[in-house]
Amino acid sequence: MDEFSLIERIAARTAARADVLLGIGDDCALLAPPPGQVLAVTADTLNAGVHFPAETPAFDIGWKTLAVNLSDLAAMGAQPAWCTLAVSLPHSQAAWLDAFADGLFALADRAGITLVGGDTTRGPLSLSVTAMGWVPAGQALRRDLARAGDEVWVSGVPGEAALALRLWQQGQLDVASVQADADLEAVRLRLLQPAPRNALGLALRGIATAAIDISDGLSADLGHVCRRSGLAAHLQLADLPSSPALQQLAPGEAAWPLQTAGGDDYELCFCAPAAAHAQVLAAAAQAAVPVSCIGRLEAGHGVHWVDGKGAAWHPSRPGYTHFSGV
Amino acid sequence: MDEFSLIERIAARTAARADVLLGIGDDCALLAPPPGQVLAVTADTLNAGVHFPAETPAFDIGWKTLAVNLSDLAAMGAQPAWCTLAVSLPHSQAAWLDAFADGLFALADRAGITLVGGDTTRGPLSLSVTAMGWVPAGQALRRDLARAGDEVWVSGVPGEAALALRLWQQGQLDVASVQADADLEAVRLRLLQPAPRNALGLALRGIATAAIDISDGLSADLGHVCRRSGLAAHLQLADLPSSPALQQLAPGEAAWPLQTAGGDDYELCFCAPAAAHAQVLAAAAQAAVPVSCIGRLEAGHGVHWVDGKGAAWHPSRPGYTHFSGV
Repeated sequence: MDEFSLIERIAARTAARADVLLGIGDDCALLAPPPGQVLAVTADTLNAGVHFPAETPAFDIGWKTLAVNLSDLAAMGAQPAWCTLAVSLPHSQAAWLDAFADGLFALADRAGITLVGGDTTRGPLSLSVTAMGWVPAGQALRRDLARAGDEVWVSGVPGEAALALRLWQQGQLDVASVQADADLEAVRLRLLQPAPRNALGLALRGIATAAIDISDGLSADLGHVCRRSGLAAHLQLADLPSSPALQQLAPGEAAWPLQTAGGDDYELCFCAPAAAHAQVLAAAAQAAVPVSCIGRLEAGHGVHWVDGKGAAWHPSRPGYTHFSGV
Repeated sequence: MDEFSLIERIAARTAARADVLLGIGDDCALLAPPPGQVLAVTADTLNAGVHFPAETPAFDIGWKTLAVNLSDLAAMGAQPAWCTLAVSLPHSQAAWLDAFADGLFALADRAGITLVGGDTTRGPLSLSVTAMGWVPAGQALRRDLARAGDEVWVSGVPGEAALALRLWQQGQLDVASVQADADLEAVRLRLLQPAPRNALGLALRGIATAAIDISDGLSADLGHVCRRSGLAAHLQLADLPSSPALQQLAPGEAAWPLQTAGGDDYELCFCAPAAAHAQVLAAAAQAAVPVSCIGRLEAGHGVHWVDGKGAAWHPSRPGYTHFSGV
């Protein structure tokens, strides 16, 4: 399989969008911007053995490569539009590439994002996506516009992806196979096929004051919002969402480090005025994404947790700071 | 050096642009599109040992990583605006990253393109850029709009980069050191620091009917234009531009395979009506880039060369088809 059949293999599967004036096959793609909007751009890379176990199925790698970038668009409140893809593959493997594309396009078609260019090169397995989306001027969900008094919210159940990673590291979870145990299978899919919260990000335009996606752990990522907005977060461990899988596999306090400092969740953490509490719940219902209010922002700095008795508690590690992420 | 100092190291060096509403440091950059224009997007990856010798200096890797993408914008007639960068590095090396950034930003500042996001990860050395630019609607230099009767032009001197690569493979050129011999140094810099022809691409808007950049070799790349436009190219070897370095290091017919099938030149090959001959020369003079008329497009298909006596000649290889390029 040479360069040109690789190209055709991928280009043939891209979905049509009316704003793609010229797609894959020229020096550049040509794309029509919608009027009155601002372009949101993000880029993230996944490397084998660093960002996912080497034995991860190709479908899941394709899904997650796009998911982590869609999650950044979600955290900005941007409508996904286009993406580019750089694939480095050790060998020219049609079957691997097809399965990878199955995962990538399964999510791309769901999110309405179209591949408009890219590059397939020989090299150690590495996947880079640059994703582009649109948000009306002034409505982007930035990190630096949270306000004192805002409530702090989180979507879904942070901690399940970190739980899956730990179980894999302990030899208790095979990431490459469907698990017979329903709880194990639930956390496996949370790690391999995270669901980016684009519908929620769009629904929170005009309601949330700030948002970030949870890639490095809830405390670490909310810490960026606090730092950029010049505020402190005060949070209740008792208000953290849980799940049957977390309760079964990391009962009680064992869940706290996962929930507060686990990475790879791709949930949204966002802030909104307390007066907008009902609006947040309505937006979440519209997006069909569960959300939980876990605390409040105040003057000061740092991210502060208290347990059910009001005693201060600190995550055992500050979240992922792997060698990554501009 | 952890994730955040890497981020700060790169973000601190990005040039300001008024259309960057929010740069590196949030989930996405926010960018203001100019009115009435179309977004041109391209993505290219360079891997150590595949796209450049492992001993290539970091400065040159930074330069070339951006140059190959700027060249695609040039071939589309698009004004460079923004880019994202994905760097995979085996180890966290501040000195290497600084030298790499020196090369990248030397060219970025010259071209007026601003880094707006990216990702630095641990892994085998690999560099991916997605570049974005703008072109007025209807003025892009596509591959599929050449017309029968058009003249075929090429910028600069294709073949010098391939000559440098061959000399390196033969142990006659050290890519990591300034060469005492002026001709050797000239071709070394052509391989390591190609000059993307953005000024020429912009000057050719409204004049050229089609354009492509020469990354895989003149014959192979012009072949894409012929195929997409449904035409044949008839070209004269005698009209190919040469240089003191080529004449010295690959005299006479020895230059032909390099000139017609060598890759990595990042010159532009473009087509324009014969009636626009003087306009092309004026545009090239305005851009301060030498151009040569090397033949003509006619009905038919394929790329056909003749020597000084009118005899048909075929390149010894069809251009790079390394495992690459969507």
